[in-house]
Amino acid sequence: MYTLFIANKTNSSWSLRPWILLTQLGIPFEEVQLYFQPDKQLQKIDFLQASPISKVPALHHNNMVIWDSLAIVEYIAEDYPQVWASDKAARAWSRCASAEMHSSFVALRTQCSMNTQKFTPLSTPDTALLTELQRIDQLWTDGLQRFKGEFLAANQFTAVDAFFAPVVIRLIHYGLMDYLSPAANAYAKRIYQLPSMQKWLKLAELEKDRPIRNP
Amino acid sequence: MYTLFIANKTNSSWSLRPWILLTQLGIPFEEVQLYFQPDKQLQKIDFLQASPISKVPALHHNNMVIWDSLAIVEYIAEDYPQVWASDKAARAWSRCASAEMHSSFVALRTQCSMNTQKFTPLSTPDTALLTELQRIDQLWTDGLQRFKGEFLAANQFTAVDAFFAPVVIRLIHYGLMDYLSPAANAYAKRIYQLPSMQKWLKLAELEKDRPIRNP
Repeated sequence: MYTLFIANKTNSSWSLRPWILLTQLGIPFEEVQLYFQPDKQLQKIDFLQASPISKVPALHHNNMVIWDSLAIVEYIAEDYPQVWASDKAARAWSRCASAEMHSSFVALRTQCSMNTQKFTPLSTPDTALLTELQRIDQLWTDGLQRFKGEFLAANQFTAVDAFFAPVVIRLIHYGLMDYLSPAANAYAKRIYQLPSMQKWLKLAELEKDRPIRNP
Repeated sequence: MYTLFIANKTNSSWSLRPWILLTQLGIPFEEVQLYFQPDKQLQKIDFLQASPISKVPALHHNNMVIWDSLAIVEYIAEDYPQVWASDKAARAWSRCASAEMHSSFVALRTQCSMNTQKFTPLSTPDTALLTELQRIDQLWTDGLQRFKGEFLAANQFTAVDAFFAPVVIRLIHYGLMDYLSPAANAYAKRIYQLPSMQKWLKLAELEKDRPIRNP
């Protein structure tokens, strides 16, 4: 059985990625919930139980520690091929889009840090954020058109959808959905309504007295 | 046959990763060499032939465009499993280390941008850079000890070594090798002396009149 270490559901966007993937695909796992702490040194010590760099998510399995979200996805995909699209072109596209998310979109990640419990519309996104919103719209539209499905890589929820799940929360909670064209907008709403996403959001509500990372 | 689009060998660190992997493993590929341009708008238009985001490296194969370095590695690994270690634990570790490189080490990447034609010792690394140097030392030492080989994931050169190849160039060219413990130091020297690395460095010398990205 996989053991997945995560942090606050309210704002640990990286934790959401493998969690929603495993949950939505019905892959069994045990969850270890850690919480951000006001004292970052104490938090660092506490999070060492998860990974050598005191970060989450981390997957523990057969005495191995997998400490990066993209590596977690590839690790699980070796046991569960449905983690990625079965079509080779869709799989290659999905890995590109997921890796782009893994290393980019810095303006979105810093200016719109995920907070599932807040709705705070941004009045005027700056140029850097606008450029990223355009790229997200272009990526999602491309995936939806190219593979002709409800999800980014055809008709099954796969890891690339999981990688963009926190982006969906950000766009909705910061009032940025109007920057998406209709197909991408509808896609974001579908992801937000998924049972696994709704479960995450409800569990996050129970954390309202917990300190979060970026108050 | 794979077609790999790269930019200046002098300072396109991301291009080096898939290039050295393919070259060192003897996997056949055709190379398309692009060059950075003083006019960034013209460069952007030129680099569109490589990828939809005007970035390199990009791999073209069977009408597919794979536009991210980590996705390129996974794409090639589907055809050539020797891209990653054959041992499951070593493979998981390698993917974590490669993904960490893919998203982190910002101080090293910004303060010590790769330039194969310059040797410019840094006198006093700042705290951010020191922390990253310690992490690199820890990672390399861990891989070398854990899998007991000449390379990070045992005795074969694999993608994780390719991912750190530009870091090796940076450490040597910025005079930062003394920040490594002996095993990691010796590893860096081994990578620098690899035939594929030496070939890249020699080809880079031919570019001395080309404009580079960060002059």
